Amino acid sequence: MIKPSIPKGTRDFGPVVVRKRQYIFQTIRETFELFGFQPLETPAMEQMDTLTGKYGEEGDKLIFKILDNGDILGRAQQAKDSRELGILLCEKALRYDLTIPFARFVVMNQNDLAFPFKRYQMQPVWRADRPQKGRYREFYQCDVDIVGSNSLLNEIELLMIYDSVFTKLGMEGYEIRINNRKILSALAEVAGKPELLTDITVAIDKLDKIGIEKVKEELSERGLNESEIAIIANFLNIEGNNEEKLQQLGELFKNSETGKKGIEELTYVLHSQPTAFKTTPILDVTLARGLNYYTGMIVEVKAPSTVKMGSIGGGGRYDDLTGLFGLPNLSGVGISFGVDRIYDVLEELQLFPATAQQGTRVLIFNMDANTTSTAFPMLASLRARGIAAELYHEPSKMDKQMKYANKRGIPYVIIMGESEVKEGVLSIKNMVSGLQEKIAVADLANYSFQ
Amino acid sequence: MIKPSIPKGTRDFGPVVVRKRQYIFQTIRETFELFGFQPLETPAMEQMDTLTGKYGEEGDKLIFKILDNGDILGRAQQAKDSRELGILLCEKALRYDLTIPFARFVVMNQNDLAFPFKRYQMQPVWRADRPQKGRYREFYQCDVDIVGSNSLLNEIELLMIYDSVFTKLGMEGYEIRINNRKILSALAEVAGKPELLTDITVAIDKLDKIGIEKVKEELSERGLNESEIAIIANFLNIEGNNEEKLQQLGELFKNSETGKKGIEELTYVLHSQPTAFKTTPILDVTLARGLNYYTGMIVEVKAPSTVKMGSIGGGGRYDDLTGLFGLPNLSGVGISFGVDRIYDVLEELQLFPATAQQGTRVLIFNMDANTTSTAFPMLASLRARGIAAELYHEPSKMDKQMKYANKRGIPYVIIMGESEVKEGVLSIKNMVSGLQEKIAVADLANYSFQ
Repeated sequence: MIKPSIPKGTRDFGPVVVRKRQYIFQTIRETFELFGFQPLETPAMEQMDTLTGKYGEEGDKLIFKILDNGDILGRAQQAKDSRELGILLCEKALRYDLTIPFARFVVMNQNDLAFPFKRYQMQPVWRADRPQKGRYREFYQCDVDIVGSNSLLNEIELLMIYDSVFTKLGMEGYEIRINNRKILSALAEVAGKPELLTDITVAIDKLDKIGIEKVKEELSERGLNESEIAIIANFLNIEGNNEEKLQQLGELFKNSETGKKGIEELTYVLHSQPTAFKTTPILDVTLARGLNYYTGMIVEVKAPSTVKMGSIGGGGRYDDLTGLFGLPNLSGVGISFGVDRIYDVLEELQLFPATAQQGTRVLIFNMDANTTSTAFPMLASLRARGIAAELYHEPSKMDKQMKYANKRGIPYVIIMGESEVKEGVLSIKNMVSGLQEKIAVADLANYSFQ
Repeated sequence: MIKPSIPKGTRDFGPVVVRKRQYIFQTIRETFELFGFQPLETPAMEQMDTLTGKYGEEGDKLIFKILDNGDILGRAQQAKDSRELGILLCEKALRYDLTIPFARFVVMNQNDLAFPFKRYQMQPVWRADRPQKGRYREFYQCDVDIVGSNSLLNEIELLMIYDSVFTKLGMEGYEIRINNRKILSALAEVAGKPELLTDITVAIDKLDKIGIEKVKEELSERGLNESEIAIIANFLNIEGNNEEKLQQLGELFKNSETGKKGIEELTYVLHSQPTAFKTTPILDVTLARGLNYYTGMIVEVKAPSTVKMGSIGGGGRYDDLTGLFGLPNLSGVGISFGVDRIYDVLEELQLFPATAQQGTRVLIFNMDANTTSTAFPMLASLRARGIAAELYHEPSKMDKQMKYANKRGIPYVIIMGESEVKEGVLSIKNMVSGLQEKIAVADLANYSFQ
């Protein structure tokens, strides 16, 4: 008999973890709904050609492919290499993110949808990445997007969703950092290397991790000369509050149309509803975000600095996502929540509320064969009040039942021993405080179990 | 450009459907929690050897296998047939049901779990079945089980869960039918062919579909003679209310120890809490259920007869499920809910409540550039009251915004046109009744939108 195991990079979620994760999902879901977003769920499997070519060469390698059923030996024999083998043997693959399935859905249902289409989606995705701490082969993504609208109101609403969710989760000291890709385009322009925009973006994206000197080295390797690098370094030095930064950007890009447009967009977003935010978004000109399909605002949420975690969410505006599937010129903007990391932050800061950790509240001890007839009506009445309750499954010794209650973390037990039955009372023991009291059976209906 | 599609047998769930499905899941989840069950989630992928050999030869063929990444061409070249190719190229496969992953989890975590372990699990499974009406390659299972207890209290609790869930869903006229595998064993005994128990069970299982004459034919083909078949036919004729049936079973099995045990178990379950059920379980001696790992009570829920649907749930007691993974002698009992079919029943009987179909309640029309500053505080106040609200994304013509509200099924719109602003009022239009009224801006906080 082989000792059972699960595939590396995957996880079982036991009761305690599922409840806490549900709390996060539920908080996010409620917020999405309050903001008028609609749920979407797509299949775990997509057609292979829906996914291939969408995530770059590296991404393609990380897609989990599903072996076709039936007679496939003949096809296998035609393959010249492993890559071709995968193509010949697999028509389907597992979802790699939620963005491409979303784009695919929009294109397939374009005639039935009301545009702008505001959707959210919270489902697992699969990537054949090398598993390591905090990186899994199966993990949930949690995305909210609007497609079919260029309006900056969408950007503001999405920032407010971040603000609202993290406030509800009780998080403090996190930062919502925003920038605009047009600012970075203008920078490449002003530095005299507009054709190296992607290289410059990629280098700036590493600033946090490698520091300014290494970024300069990388820019040099990527073909920028000293004076060009100086312009970028100067830009990365822009400091102050949002207004001061906007001011300095204005100076720097006074002759760039792209730059002025970027500043205008940032200004609109930052000035629109400053008082509505519990946590005012911070303009961070060094924010770049790796993926290069962004075209307007970009955003990233940084965990409270007391927790070593980095980004717990991010997103931005993109153009033409659905163009990949034949529906061009549909602009979109979206953000996502990093649920695994948010979980770790809440855990570390002990922000999960008691209700997110509560299973059964009351265990009725099973004393003897007579317990059942009195216990069932009690269970029914407790459950009707919304109190999770159970009866120990069989008559057993007290200590065995105590042990079960403790192991399950059940805060209250009800005991109806011989003496209680004689007196017509119940003993209720609070397993946390250890206090035990007797109440009349009729008073159970009013006992709070809080 | 290829027209995008999804794999056959899979489905996209749009907003309306997701909300209704969430309502079903939420109703079931709440009930499971009230009864003291705990959530479990396992990975979509399992190790291949966790799954193979567990579902019979036919089942094995229907498991979706995941192609290993990396250099696999050499391995492919060693395969002599398609089956072997799958084994050589795939270490992992997609979950085929929730029962085997549950057993695997229990064995892996046996030292940390409190037994009896009461868990529920609601996740998708994947089967390479030929897709047809009502049969999908990806579908949700929704299981609740107790392992590590022989007590019949568990059977009663599970039947009450069925009763509770279907009552909450507003379903009437459904039937909870129960039987006991020991009764069927005793029947094989009394008929003189104990070694043909499985054949007899399989034949009886078809009674509903093919009728008594065909069942007799099948029994004959499977090796029973006329007098043996007569005993079975006689048994299948047992009729009356539960008490009358128990009485007749008692007669038939008065010399069978197995039979008497089966009757005792059925009697205990049926007599325990008859008044607690909204829908009293019905003893159905013809109930067999296909899977042959059941050993005690078996149960099936039939949809209301006004709907052509058949079974919407089922389950039973099994022994030794975890024995497959090296942990023997752990008895379990469980039931499952057929969520796709329950969905269809609720839809046909129009039992989905309005709340399960409600997205955005209020759309604020975007009249001009000034709307935003007044609209944002209104949105914040509505959302704080739990009312889903949105602002149309950009200033547009009234009819365009009306069309959007209609297409989205939004029941209320708020209009702040020139005349409203001048008067200091809002127009609120009920999109269902068509009625429009003006209220003072300050009165919005008390407007119910019901």
